[in-house]
Parts: sequence; C-alpha cells; structure tokens
Amino acid sequence: MMIVIMKAQATMKEKSAVIAWAEDAEYKVHLSEASDHTVIGIVTGGHPANHEQVERMPGVERVVPVLKPYKIASREFKPGNTIFPVGNQTVGDKGLVIMAGPCSVESRSQIIETAHAVKEAGAHILRGGAFKPRTSPYSFQGLGEEGLKYMAEAREETGLPIITEVMEPALVPLVCEYADILQIGARNMQNYALLHAVGKSQHPVLLKRGMSSLIEEWLMCAEYILSHGNTRVMLCERGIRTFETATRNTFDINAIAVAKHLTHLPVIADPSHATGKWEYVAAAAKASVAAGADGLIIEVHPRPTEAMSDGIQSLKPEKFAKLVKEMRAVAQAVGRDIE
Amino acid sequence: MMIVIMKAQATMKEKSAVIAWAEDAEYKVHLSEASDHTVIGIVTGGHPANHEQVERMPGVERVVPVLKPYKIASREFKPGNTIFPVGNQTVGDKGLVIMAGPCSVESRSQIIETAHAVKEAGAHILRGGAFKPRTSPYSFQGLGEEGLKYMAEAREETGLPIITEVMEPALVPLVCEYADILQIGARNMQNYALLHAVGKSQHPVLLKRGMSSLIEEWLMCAEYILSHGNTRVMLCERGIRTFETATRNTFDINAIAVAKHLTHLPVIADPSHATGKWEYVAAAAKASVAAGADGLIIEVHPRPTEAMSDGIQSLKPEKFAKLVKEMRAVAQAVGRDIE
Amino acid sequence: MMIVIMKAQATMKEKSAVIAWAEDAEYKVHLSEASDHTVIGIVTGGHPANHEQVERMPGVERVVPVLKPYKIASREFKPGNTIFPVGNQTVGDKGLVIMAGPCSVESRSQIIETAHAVKEAGAHILRGGAFKPRTSPYSFQGLGEEGLKYMAEAREETGLPIITEVMEPALVPLVCEYADILQIGARNMQNYALLHAVGKSQHPVLLKRGMSSLIEEWLMCAEYILSHGNTRVMLCERGIRTFETATRNTFDINAIAVAKHLTHLPVIADPSHATGKWEYVAAAAKASVAAGADGLIIEVHPRPTEAMSDGIQSLKPEKFAKLVKEMRAVAQAVGRDIE
Amino acid sequence: MMIVIMKAQATMKEKSAVIAWAEDAEYKVHLSEASDHTVIGIVTGGHPANHEQVERMPGVERVVPVLKPYKIASREFKPGNTIFPVGNQTVGDKGLVIMAGPCSVESRSQIIETAHAVKEAGAHILRGGAFKPRTSPYSFQGLGEEGLKYMAEAREETGLPIITEVMEPALVPLVCEYADILQIGARNMQNYALLHAVGKSQHPVLLKRGMSSLIEEWLMCAEYILSHGNTRVMLCERGIRTFETATRNTFDINAIAVAKHLTHLPVIADPSHATGKWEYVAAAAKASVAAGADGLIIEVHPRPTEAMSDGIQSLKPEKFAKLVKEMRAVAQAVGRDIE
Repeated sequence: MMIVIMKAQATMKEKSAVIAWAEDAEYKVHLSEASDHTVIGIVTGGHPANHEQVERMPGVERVVPVLKPYKIASREFKPGNTIFPVGNQTVGDKGLVIMAGPCSVESRSQIIETAHAVKEAGAHILRGGAFKPRTSPYSFQGLGEEGLKYMAEAREETGLPIITEVMEPALVPLVCEYADILQIGARNMQNYALLHAVGKSQHPVLLKRGMSSLIEEWLMCAEYILSHGNTRVMLCERGIRTFETATRNTFDINAIAVAKHLTHLPVIADPSHATGKWEYVAAAAKASVAAGADGLIIEVHPRPTEAMSDGIQSLKPEKFAKLVKEMRAVAQAVGRDIE
Repeated sequence: MMIVIMKAQATMKEKSAVIAWAEDAEYKVHLSEASDHTVIGIVTGGHPANHEQVERMPGVERVVPVLKPYKIASREFKPGNTIFPVGNQTVGDKGLVIMAGPCSVESRSQIIETAHAVKEAGAHILRGGAFKPRTSPYSFQGLGEEGLKYMAEAREETGLPIITEVMEPALVPLVCEYADILQIGARNMQNYALLHAVGKSQHPVLLKRGMSSLIEEWLMCAEYILSHGNTRVMLCERGIRTFETATRNTFDINAIAVAKHLTHLPVIADPSHATGKWEYVAAAAKASVAAGADGLIIEVHPRPTEAMSDGIQSLKPEKFAKLVKEMRAVAQAVGRDIE
Repeated sequence: MMIVIMKAQATMKEKSAVIAWAEDAEYKVHLSEASDHTVIGIVTGGHPANHEQVERMPGVERVVPVLKPYKIASREFKPGNTIFPVGNQTVGDKGLVIMAGPCSVESRSQIIETAHAVKEAGAHILRGGAFKPRTSPYSFQGLGEEGLKYMAEAREETGLPIITEVMEPALVPLVCEYADILQIGARNMQNYALLHAVGKSQHPVLLKRGMSSLIEEWLMCAEYILSHGNTRVMLCERGIRTFETATRNTFDINAIAVAKHLTHLPVIADPSHATGKWEYVAAAAKASVAAGADGLIIEVHPRPTEAMSDGIQSLKPEKFAKLVKEMRAVAQAVGRDIE
Repeated sequence: MMIVIMKAQATMKEKSAVIAWAEDAEYKVHLSEASDHTVIGIVTGGHPANHEQVERMPGVERVVPVLKPYKIASREFKPGNTIFPVGNQTVGDKGLVIMAGPCSVESRSQIIETAHAVKEAGAHILRGGAFKPRTSPYSFQGLGEEGLKYMAEAREETGLPIITEVMEPALVPLVCEYADILQIGARNMQNYALLHAVGKSQHPVLLKRGMSSLIEEWLMCAEYILSHGNTRVMLCERGIRTFETATRNTFDINAIAVAKHLTHLPVIADPSHATGKWEYVAAAAKASVAAGADGLIIEVHPRPTEAMSDGIQSLKPEKFAKLVKEMRAVAQAVGRDIE
C-alpha cells in the first residue's frame, strides 16, 4: 500500500493519470479530497510496487510507502525472538553472549594466549580477524588462511567457538571450513554478492551495521541473508559516523532498542568500535547491557601497545575480566544474565 | 602551545616568516626538520594565540593547537567532581538525581497533579516549561510567567525544587525568582548573551548540548558560564542530529563518559529527547545510568495523548514509577544509588 | 490534513478512537482499509492540528502531515520572487548582490580601507562584525557599538550599505540605528526571541541557516520574522555540519535550488563559511552563482594573516576582485548578471 | 613523521617510554618541552609507523600523523593532472566529459534509444547498469550479462564508449570484456577485494565516493587501485549522507575543489545521485562545472515514469539536451569547454 500526496495545484488530469496508473496495475484506489490537497491511497495487495514511478508523475508531491520494505526480518513476520545455538552457547535467549579477542590474529601464540585469557575472564566465543579490511593498502592485511588455522587451534585448546570476518564471496567456503560464525564488516554491509554468499552458506552470521546506514537499510541487508533460508543472523551495532570526533564513532545506543522492537533477530553491541578508545569501552559495554543487547563483541589484546591494529581500543585481559563482572551485575539488574 | 606543520615544499623564507611571527610575539620556538616535512613548535607560555593567523601564512599546511580551549571546565583545573546541593538534593555525588515532569506547563491542575505523581514515583526535582522554544510560530508557546507561578505552587505542595527553561537574557531575573535551576535548551547552547546572563545570575544551570555541537564546544559554553564564577553547572546530553530517522535524535551515550573524563561537572541524561519516542525511553534511561550519568531528566505527563507538546515522548506516571525502580537496580549494579 | 497509518495489528477499538478524536475536533475523516494496513485521512480544514497527540494513540504506527508547516514563506502563498531594494541595490532580481568585507571590524582604518577595496572590486554591500559570536569566552568579542560607528563612517565614505550581525534582542534597536541589513548568525537561527525582535524591527534581515538545520526548519525561522509583517528577508546558506573535516563545513549547494523552489525569498550564499579555507572560496562562489544564488557574502581582509578572526577563510582584495570578474562571467552564462 | 602530544601530567617515565619505543625502531626523536605540555616529534624516515601503538602508551594524549596516508594519489607525487583517453574522448583535460544514460539497462530497445538520444544531446560516453546494487532483495537486480550485450550493441550503433558498474571481484573479467570504463559504486568504495581486482584489470575506473566517506578515505581507495599500476582512475563525487532529507543526498560540492587540490586524478560529478530529484539536477550540474569538475555523469531516461529504477532523478532527453547547452556556457565562462 502506498499513499500519493498530490500537489495543492495538481490538475484533474494529473490526478486521473495517477489513478489510471494504479488501475492498469490492477491495484485498488482510495481517493481523499480536501480543499488544500488530494491524497490517493493505492492498495497493491502485497505486490511490491515501484513507488518512484508514481513519485515522478506530474502533479505528485510525494509518495509515502505504508509497508515496511523488509518482511522475513520483521516482528510482524515472526513475533517471537530468534534463538539459536552456537557451539555450547545459545544466542538470543535470557543469557548474554560475550565474544572477545584481538582485532587481528597476529601469531599462533598471540591468539592462543588471548583465547585462554578471555575464556578465563568469562567470554563464550573467540573473535579474531584473519582477513582485515584496512583503510590503507600499505597496512597489515591479516594472516589470511594461516590466521584461520591458528584460530581453529585456539578453539581446540579452549573449546570456544570462533567468529571471524569474511570479506569476499569467493572466500566464503574457505572461511566456513574454520569459523563457527561469519562476520560481515561495516564496510561490507551492502556488499550484496557477499550477503548472497553467506546466505547460501547456511552458516551463522553476525551482520555489522554500516557506518552510515539507516536501521531500515541494515534490516534490508539481513533480509538478503534471510531470503536464502539462513535464519541464524545476528545484528551488530558498532557505532555510526557523525560530526563528533572525540570518539571514533558515535554509539547509536537507541539502535539496540529500535532493532529489538522491529525485528526478532538477536542484537549484539560492539563497544570497542563504537567508542574507539579503551577508556570508554566499559561505560559503553555496560550501557549496551542495560539497553537490552543480547550479547557483546569486545576487542581484547594481551599487550595492546604491540597490537598490529586497533590497539587503542583493545582492553587488556585483566580489564576485560573486571568488565565481565560489572556487565553481569548490570545484566542481572535488568533481568538477564551472563553465565 | 601550538604545532605548525609546514608543507613539504615550503621554502626557507616561508619557514622563517613563521618563526619571525612567533618571535615577534615573544613566544619560544622549537624546530624539527625531517626530509619530508618541517614542524615548528611554538610555546606561547599560556597566552591564547590566534592560530588561524599562522595557518594563513604561506607554506603552512596546518596548525595543531596543543592546549584544550577550555580551562575552568577541565579536569586538569579541578580534578575532583563538582558537587552541589539543589533544594534537599545533592547533584554530582553517589546518588543520582531524577528530574521529571511535563514538557510544557499547561494548567495549574496539570502541573500540580504531575508533581505529586512524579514525587511519589521517586523523582527529586520537577521539570516543566513555561517559555517554550517551538519550531513553528503557530504552535503553543507556553504560559509564560503564569506557568512559572503554577510551578512554584507545585513546589510548595510537594517540596520538589523546580527546573525550567529560560530563553532570553532579559527574562533571566524573572525566571530566577521562581526556578531553582535554569535550563539552557539545545537551540540556545551558543546563545552567548544568554550564557553570560545565567553566568552572572549565580543560579544553578543545566546546559543542554546543542544538537550538532561537538563535546568540546559544549564545554566551551559551560566555560562561558563558569567564567562568571558560577560553578553550579550541570551538562545535559539530549541526543544529537544524525542521518538516522528512526528516532528523533541519536543518543550519544559515549558523550556521558567522555564528558565525565574531560570535566568535573555533573552530567545529566535526557532520554526523552534522545529517543523522541516513549517506547524507547526506558532502554535509554537505564543505559544512561549504566554509562555513568549523574542524573536524568525525563518527560512525564498524566495523559500524553492530550499533551500540548512532546506527548509522543512522554511517559505516563505509572510507567515512570516502574522505570525509577529499574534505574535504581542498575544504579546499584554500578555502585551508585537512587534514593 | 494529516494521514494516520495504523499498525497492521491495530484493533477496531483503536481505529475507532482515532476517528472519534478527529470527529470531536470536527475534522472530516476518510478511511482506507487494506488487508495489511488501515489508513485514516483527517481533513482539518486548514486548522493546525497537534499530530503528536494522534501519533501517541494506541495502534497508531505513524502520522504523516500533508501540509507544509510554513505558510507566508511558501511559493504557494506568493508565487513570484520577493524583490526589494537595499540602498541603491536590488535584492532578488536578475542582478546578483555581492556583500563583502572582514569577519570583524578591527579598527576604523581597517574597515574603511576594506570598504574602499571591496567597492572598487565590485561589491555592492559592506559586511563586518561588531558583535561577534565566539566559541571561546577568551577570544576577541568584537568592538561593539564602536565597530558600528566605524562601519557607518565607511558607508559615508563609500556609499555602500552595511550589513552586520545582531546577537540579542535587547541590541536590535541599537544595531538598527546603524545597519542597513541585520544578520542573524547560524548559531542564533532558532533564537526565537531574536527572530521576533528583528521581525518587529521591520529592518531587512539576512537569516543564516543553522549548521544542522533542516531546510524546513530554516524556512520556519523565516516564518517567525515574516509573521510580523517584515517581508524583507533573505535566506543565507553557509554550509552545514557533517562528518567531513577537510573543510570547515559542507556546502549544501542543493539547498540553494531547494530553497528557491519552496520559497519566494532571495537566497544568498556564503562561500567563506561554507568552505572555511580561502583556497576553496572561489570554486564555491562560482558554483553558487551557477546554482542560482541571488547574491553572495564573502569575507575579505586586506591582510588576512593579521585578521583577528577568520583570517584563514578571508580573501585578499586582489583575489576578491578577480573572483568578482569570474562570477560575473558565470552569472552571464546562466542568464543573470553582476552589475 | 608523527607528533606525540603527552598529557600535561605525563611522568618522566612515560615520556622516556615513548622515546625508547621510537629509538628501538631506529626513528629520530625531537623533544619540545613547555611548562604545560611535552611534545615528541618522531621522524620515521618515510616508514609507515603504527601510530595507534604510540597513542595507546601511558601518558600520551594524542598522536598527530604529519604525512598524508596516500602517496601515488597525491599531488606531491605527481604535480600535473592525470589525463587519459577513453574511446575518442580525453578525460582530465580542458574539455569536460559528459556521461549519460539510464540507471538500469532495461531492454535492448531502451538502451539503444537512449544512446542515440544522449549522443545527439552532446554526451560523450554512455552509462547504464547491468548489475544493480539494490537496497531490497525483492527489487529488480539488473539484466546481468544480457544488459552488457545490449550496451555493447548501443556502442556499436552510436560509437559512444560505455561505462557500467561492477559489483564483485569474480565478475571483473566479464565486465571488462564489454565495458570501456568500470564503475565502482558508492556502497562498494571500501570493498577492497573489488578494488584489487579492478586495479589488476588495468581497465579505466570511475570510483564513486562512499556515502559517508571522508575525502581522505576516498583517496586511499584510489590508492588501492593505483598501487597495481592502474593509473586510469577517475574520482566521482555523488553526494554524501547527512541529516538533510529534502534531497536524497547532500552534494558536497567542496569535495570537487578539495580533491583537485590534493590529487592529480580527474574528478567527475554525479548530480543525479547528489540531488535525487530531477528538478534539482540542472542546478547541481551547472554548479559542478563552475566548481571545476572534469566531467559529469547524469541519468537520462526516455520515459522516466516507466523507469525500473531511479526514475525520480532521471532527466528526459530534451531536458538533458538543454542542460548540456547550459553547462557548455558555464564551462566556457570558467575557461573550460564541452565539445
């Protein structure tokens, strides 16, 4: 259904043309005429209509689509929360899921050391990047498959499932061999070929919000994945780009509640990217829990001043352990828990 | 102190001109020459130097000021938190301060009814607007002094101190007669004549962040007030304007931690404006508490569907009472309290 | 007129409540029911209705206002361009108006020297700030009335009308004594007390767009002035705040065409603030002319490296003279002229 | 080279640690001590240093990189403009290049009809999308290879070289078979696998700016392509995402002059996406020419109300023909031309 608002000075001929367009397409038409404006309601019977075509017709001021553009992702489609297991962990339920680890896998020993540390601190899932999207072609680009192997070893040693980013469709099968969860990075949120590939893979996916994406666009990208029957999708709010420069990004904490309201998918918060400075990670993490996040993904590095990327926003293991305790207290205060 | 980065191709003459400018002003100069760039450090001895003048000189690529532009507002100036009483309430201490009430004072009975309701629910301070900044000249502009009188009556009946907005310098004395705290609205954050007037008044002030203001600019506006010796200033984060339209504003939750880090002033959160929709107020309020806010200001209306302004973001008293309990639990989880 | 979109799951009772609300207010109601959504059109007969009240009712998804919130400012209200004289100059007509001068009046000799230089270069109006809005309370705040006197002297010597900023309602009468045009700065766009005061003054006004103001909000502020019967209002696009930091502001060149489309008021461009760097002023100025601006306001200083403010974005007189010639060529290419 | 600004209260030990870090890496160190701050200049001898590591060290307030992160893309690297031929057309020279055509190739006849129309109107290159990035998985996704074939036919008939978007690395060889210029869309600006693939292809590339990308990030993406020795890169400004909703995007006209200043690559403007409404395309197009663009890419459709995508921002051929004449006049006014 869409609503067509005609210009105040629209002629009878212009109104008739809109009505004729709708009737040609076998849509139903409702006409509301007031002294100042005419409004034409067009009932499309669930068919996706090209509202831009109508908007371009003479005499039309604007067109307001009534239906949400996403379907499978919506609460209307599935009122109950989506809950699914990853390893021994359950995502989307009362218990929050904590994912932690370094920005980049830098070496076998670094990832294994970190895996033990975050497990001991209370993390449920190990994060680490093997393929890294870097602003500069001259920066460290990740260890590639070697990094995936080290992560798999870390999983074997600690039992923690692993999450890692995949950046191109051709690499989805390779990354699926190693990872328990595929991560789509913010820069690739609208890389549709990649979304189709991870959709087809039927692997659990964490979909980061693009840094200037509307919440609606984010849900449309989830819809791309869901449309392949892959229902194990988590949304991840990681901060958006605004005019403020005191932090790397502006953490859109509202987006957690809005996404929980509009969709049934679990929502994960990334306080590391959302702040970009380790000093502010704890405040943002606790706020995420209070706002209703279903989990967090947090960068932890044993020696942040030696990190090959994102050292500035990484917590040391001891700070992370303290934070997990604090988050647990907040979780319990809002009727959730961190096991 | 400022750092002058010269262009790669800057000539000796251009460099000398910058040095001469600094020496004329009796500043000290440090020169660092590398093969690719020359950097000139200029030590101004605490004098506020006009760095734009240097930036405009030939051969200069950019100038980086080293010092923060605010002084009295900074943690360096006063490491401990600013704590002060308002009525029987203390702001800036372990206990959080809850301010609540309608957007606008609409009638004597409405504000008195609301005052009783929010007091019973646990609020410490009554909010209400008598002079209203409205986008449209055709909208309700507030009851003016009549509204202030009703608020004073509500204070008498309930004992709650009152906070209300003042919009122009000429009205500061009048509003001071009635209000316990003056509120500077987001649109007036950089209304410097108003900042001077409330500074001189020596009345407690709540300074809302402008909707597209950098945190640094917000602190500079606090500095305007503080420079009059008025130290009872609270900062209020109320959401910023971004591209996202699912909420009225984007709640910059990071700003709470950043402001607490940079300044000693109490930081209050306004989840009503930060979300603009009552459905999301509770999540944002609890997140604020978890992030370290020293208080909250929340819109409450006995019958939101009849409100003359902001009904859409106002809580009913019973929802507000429930929220106070939830916020108290979160406050206790992070080592604070709501009495 | 407004359109109420009900939630898919809205009950009959909820729909009836909206209809009853409208009928109580004696509005007409049009109902459109589709299988997925009900839409209720409410014809208010030109009365300004509080659409927030409806939006807050149970079962309502959102409300779409059909009418523009501004009236006197709209092209519907007055289809032809607003044209008026300032001194010997006509604003809003085929010929473009060039305003130029320093950011701040710094001394008698500086403003008189600059006035002669910009007149010779082709400017029609002299700009200069006597009361300066400054981010820091420790920066130069302008010469005040002394500055206005120097500007008046410069007018006497050159015949150029003068434009200067007024920052607070109480100073409007004083500034009107000296200035031919009152300027409302970006920070004060929504300083409603000031808008009322300049509206009442019946003096020509240049209204700068706030740095994060929607075009619609800008027109609403013009409406505040126009509602006092003061029709001599110019709009000024001076750049908006975005995430980009390579320039001081992002020049919203689209806003010129949009404002010309929606309103009959003259639109002036400020390429100095819109770029913040003198190197980019000429490109932005010529683009403004090509985009349809009715005039420009440009910062010119005889010795930018000695300017007390905005030196970095000020042109030297000889560059400005060259630019006027270039703008004239562009103006003629688009069927306009610069006399 | 980088500049490390230490906190006011940084200890001698903290300063020594930074110096030791630099000396370990065999960098040269310059120390500037003032009473309020210590600044440490670190000369890396052109080596790309990980400034985040330093920023994370105790006592460090912030680190200011002196060098630009891009090299091959910079004017310092290559002072003269990059000029190259595409078909019979030269890009980057005095003459502006006009690319025009529909958003999507919809049928054989549609693209051939449009090709003739835009050629006659004065266009030099034919645009058209065969693989379409669409917000919704349920929208028309383009004709794929079939669309490329129709474009090739249109080239054969008219002699116009063709430009079309490529969305994934695996399709680069296929698209290269047909297209004269590869287009990287805004959503894929930071799709690094794709940038590497088009870099390797050695095909001319038009790189659209991401909708929330800093100019510096845009140039870094050009650097990805250039680093493969593919020097035929055009930058394309197509509007950025801001808070303004009156237009689809905010046209960052400043970016044209800034990019021309920082880099030697040709800069193309896309007034269709930059405005999103056909009514404003002409103003934005003429502004682009006046601001110094080296070319334009404009959406033209013979029957916009029947377009399968972007009809609302497409010009009809006759409006486009008129615009080319107007742009030519502006080009000549600024010392350029459109042949």
